[in-house]
Amino acid sequence: MSEAASAQATRAAIGDSEFDRDTALIPRAPGVYDIDLSAGWTIINAVNGGYLLAVLGRALADALPHADPFTISAHYLTASQPGPAVVRTDVVRTGRTLSTGQASLFQYDEEGREVERIRVLASYGDLDALPDDVRTTAEPPAIPPLDQCFGPQDGPAPVSGSSAIADRLMIKIDPATLGWAVGAPSGKGEMRAWFGLADGRDADPLSLLLAVDALPPTAFELGLKGWVPTVELTVHVRSRPAPGPLRVSITTRNLAGGFLEEDAEVWDSNDRLVAQSRQLARVRLG
Amino acid sequence: MSEAASAQATRAAIGDSEFDRDTALIPRAPGVYDIDLSAGWTIINAVNGGYLLAVLGRALADALPHADPFTISAHYLTASQPGPAVVRTDVVRTGRTLSTGQASLFQYDEEGREVERIRVLASYGDLDALPDDVRTTAEPPAIPPLDQCFGPQDGPAPVSGSSAIADRLMIKIDPATLGWAVGAPSGKGEMRAWFGLADGRDADPLSLLLAVDALPPTAFELGLKGWVPTVELTVHVRSRPAPGPLRVSITTRNLAGGFLEEDAEVWDSNDRLVAQSRQLARVRLG
Repeated sequence: MSEAASAQATRAAIGDSEFDRDTALIPRAPGVYDIDLSAGWTIINAVNGGYLLAVLGRALADALPHADPFTISAHYLTASQPGPAVVRTDVVRTGRTLSTGQASLFQYDEEGREVERIRVLASYGDLDALPDDVRTTAEPPAIPPLDQCFGPQDGPAPVSGSSAIADRLMIKIDPATLGWAVGAPSGKGEMRAWFGLADGRDADPLSLLLAVDALPPTAFELGLKGWVPTVELTVHVRSRPAPGPLRVSITTRNLAGGFLEEDAEVWDSNDRLVAQSRQLARVRLG
Repeated sequence: MSEAASAQATRAAIGDSEFDRDTALIPRAPGVYDIDLSAGWTIINAVNGGYLLAVLGRALADALPHADPFTISAHYLTASQPGPAVVRTDVVRTGRTLSTGQASLFQYDEEGREVERIRVLASYGDLDALPDDVRTTAEPPAIPPLDQCFGPQDGPAPVSGSSAIADRLMIKIDPATLGWAVGAPSGKGEMRAWFGLADGRDADPLSLLLAVDALPPTAFELGLKGWVPTVELTVHVRSRPAPGPLRVSITTRNLAGGFLEEDAEVWDSNDRLVAQSRQLARVRLG
């Protein structure tokens, strides 16, 4: 086997990767799916919100006649834990170009009663059916080459408790937005990084739902410690991503009254803006 | 009566204005409200999406223990018409700081069956209970003084069919984003205007839901004619607006595959960023 073929063989394929296995759903009844939320996508003890959104997104892709999330809005209700969960979907409307659905993720309390974790509304379509016109004034983020950016594996020691998701992701952060890691936050609400899955699986519309919520919070660069739980996250998927690593740029402009917004852009290797997202998050001072 | 008192007397109050009367709901059952959608908020024949969002927002303010929409996401399913409608709400979760609810607006087909127009998910809180810290890098839009901007009443002739909502709003558009009106669009996806209600009612969190979707589409300045129906609109209300006219700035950066985003910011007379919104809209070429 040539060296190139060997490298190729070690890359996980879409449909056969950690991300796919950990978002796989077991149909229980029409529109109802069981899943065991993986402990592999936790930050400290919380299950990552982007991973959870991808789980809900996959359920809706199955339940709706269209496969690609064009716009998906999630309201986060209670904190999810690794372990059993059920996703219940509801088809709101089906159309020729777009279909709209709703989904909720539930887990179980000590008495086995369902507790709702997240509720989602989304409109799905077929990205491959869109015309290929692009008129954009958006520009890819100015970010150094991947080998000049830094990930958790490049530091002297892993951040305690934060390693589970780090093993599943390839995140290389622009040094210009990494001051917080050495105690010198820039004071700017910016975070930029190269992003991929650690096993080399290429991006698809579902993994974009993870990509928009996987970087360290911009609040770190604003000098804030503590947790920044998401209240609501809306993602627009604008194009099917090309193979190769993504660039993710996150910006916070307005921190006020204990809340902030995080605006994310995701760019693919063809310099195409493939996703835009915004979330409203609470600032819990640590 | 002094001149100032007379001017004051002619200004409608919050709670007693066209906007309040036209978004008023009649309780039918717990969480269920009837309304006659006013023909006063139509553009050509379509009921304005921001007015409809305000109707749904008012229903949730009644149904939830918190009164102010912090983040509200609406998926537009079918076109609303002036006339009878029903809003059905569902309390998803109530918390100390935030409550989450869902609401749908229905109208009736020829056989009297309910047809869903819009579905909404929202998290509500109490804006007055937030700390008054503000750290922002956002800047108010560069827009000329109100008397140097132009509204529908300033043109030589009203745009045919578009006048109903124009009578209810005070919109004065920055001449720099008004090229489309004289056949010379700038090619930039920008629209900026002063915004208020024609009867002088001051803004509140519910009227902000109208303000983000009341300007001409940025597509006009991109040289596109025809209609730009909203697929999904999410609004974050970040502060209770001060009295006086608002400034609304809308930006589109990415028109691709027949869809575009419209990002709106709303600023109050105290130079406070009071709302941020983003919508995904379809471009239907006229």
